[in-house]
Amino acid sequence: MKEFDLIRLLVSNVPTNRAVRVGPGDDCAVLDLGVPEKEFLFKTDAVVEGIHFVREAGAEAIGRKALARCLSDIAAMAGTPIAALVTLAMPENCAPSFIEAIYAGMELLAKQHDVAIAGGETVRNPERLILSISLLGSVSRGQAVLRSGAGEGDAIFVTGELGGSIDGHHLSFEPRLEEARWLAENFRPSAMLDLSDGLAGDLRHLLAPGRLGAEILASALPIRKAARIRSKEGRTDKSPLIAALTDGEDYELLFTQKPGKAVALLDRWKEVFPRTPLSCVGKIRKASGLLIRDKSGVRELKDYGYDHFAKS
Amino acid sequence: MKEFDLIRLLVSNVPTNRAVRVGPGDDCAVLDLGVPEKEFLFKTDAVVEGIHFVREAGAEAIGRKALARCLSDIAAMAGTPIAALVTLAMPENCAPSFIEAIYAGMELLAKQHDVAIAGGETVRNPERLILSISLLGSVSRGQAVLRSGAGEGDAIFVTGELGGSIDGHHLSFEPRLEEARWLAENFRPSAMLDLSDGLAGDLRHLLAPGRLGAEILASALPIRKAARIRSKEGRTDKSPLIAALTDGEDYELLFTQKPGKAVALLDRWKEVFPRTPLSCVGKIRKASGLLIRDKSGVRELKDYGYDHFAKS
Repeated sequence: MKEFDLIRLLVSNVPTNRAVRVGPGDDCAVLDLGVPEKEFLFKTDAVVEGIHFVREAGAEAIGRKALARCLSDIAAMAGTPIAALVTLAMPENCAPSFIEAIYAGMELLAKQHDVAIAGGETVRNPERLILSISLLGSVSRGQAVLRSGAGEGDAIFVTGELGGSIDGHHLSFEPRLEEARWLAENFRPSAMLDLSDGLAGDLRHLLAPGRLGAEILASALPIRKAARIRSKEGRTDKSPLIAALTDGEDYELLFTQKPGKAVALLDRWKEVFPRTPLSCVGKIRKASGLLIRDKSGVRELKDYGYDHFAKS
Repeated sequence: MKEFDLIRLLVSNVPTNRAVRVGPGDDCAVLDLGVPEKEFLFKTDAVVEGIHFVREAGAEAIGRKALARCLSDIAAMAGTPIAALVTLAMPENCAPSFIEAIYAGMELLAKQHDVAIAGGETVRNPERLILSISLLGSVSRGQAVLRSGAGEGDAIFVTGELGGSIDGHHLSFEPRLEEARWLAENFRPSAMLDLSDGLAGDLRHLLAPGRLGAEILASALPIRKAARIRSKEGRTDKSPLIAALTDGEDYELLFTQKPGKAVALLDRWKEVFPRTPLSCVGKIRKASGLLIRDKSGVRELKDYGYDHFAKS
């Protein structure tokens, strides 16, 4: 059973109540806590030693990554983070100085985004280190951008670059909080998420199963230089294109937009975020399936999603 | 390094912001999210296979326990739970049916307390199962009962019974949510927490270090029958008294109250919660240290706290 199947099974009938506006299945839950102008975002994310990081990455980078992933999920809803809780499940061979440095990496990023570390807990996990972070954020009422909402003909956009994240980006990426809020206020996306499993895998979350599909223009994909170098040097058997589609851990925004606004958005974006690429990489189609168009024609891409759960 | 020392080190200088009214160190963080009549409680808690549970306990009981521990922390602040996020770190040898049953146990308890399961995540932890739950709750503004606040001469109370929890109570306990809210509204405690590490260990959290101490009257301790039976049958080398003071996992409320209100509280409690014992077990002293008074006199109890982190 793959991760998505298990999650679908688990959350199919969970208890809800009137505080929950959006439950499991989006980047964050959306809660109505009785503030007239705001709703709240609630998210948890864990990184596991040997799966999401190795200790050689350095304690500060590990701590930073754990929090940055959660912040990226808040960004995916166009929200603002408020407070985090930190759970450390750790073996006895973690020196206190290593744990302190994990906290230092986390705290530096937290301060940059005015996120409080409001509590947490430490437990023993004898075999490997796990960092689990829960985050509470806020979003202007009605402004949370959900994964649902993409329509036929919508243009598909991604921020930044894709592929080859393993060469460093997965530790140093900047959560797109400011960009996402600007989008929600100025060019509200019809749907949005943050890319963690690769464009090909994550696109599925924006497509109503069996009803919508997507066509990606290969030449429009913003392929990261690292993906090209890794391919050239034989450090991966993926082509740069397949790496950009499937490597995962991009932590960029993937969103859709009514086609009529696409050009205006690209123009304004360049003025507001001159250092961050924004690429229109394709469009939503009525028929299901993910098509890749390149100079040799159109072909369908199947089963290319990165499955965190299936990797070890 | 013991758990408490490490936590003290980690949280000594964490980032905060204006949303945080109470940060690390109490049963929950207290957040001000801009609701005039309410504040919010934020808590995370994890249980680890082989440390806090064994699979033989049964999946439903494990799921129930994971959530119940978090609810007990909300109770310790006199709050009401709203929504939970569930993180499962699991080995491949966990059958989907086992995980489903964990969820079933959690969901049954969640429904009893109108708690939504708003999301979560699954990750791989190859060697053992970990359940981590984050909970958001609310409390009437200014009514959260903190760990600080006990004063010299205050009477010390515990709900329920203590000791021998391992014989079943740790899986079946009822979080004292209703009792705690009633206390806060009718006989506001000067300080309160939920007992997880044993009375002797947890009392320290109510005592300003070096400034206050406590005296416990041995004959007043509500010793659980299981603690007596375990001692009688030689299944523990602790006396029933020491078991009640140090076994841990009682998940009862420990609170202090101005001495003048003690008798009235005991009388009213019996009417409102006739099935739940409430015991006045001692008093706060000005000198530091934990004294036990029994028929043979007064002696000091040292280093008896259960340390989750040091156990395996």
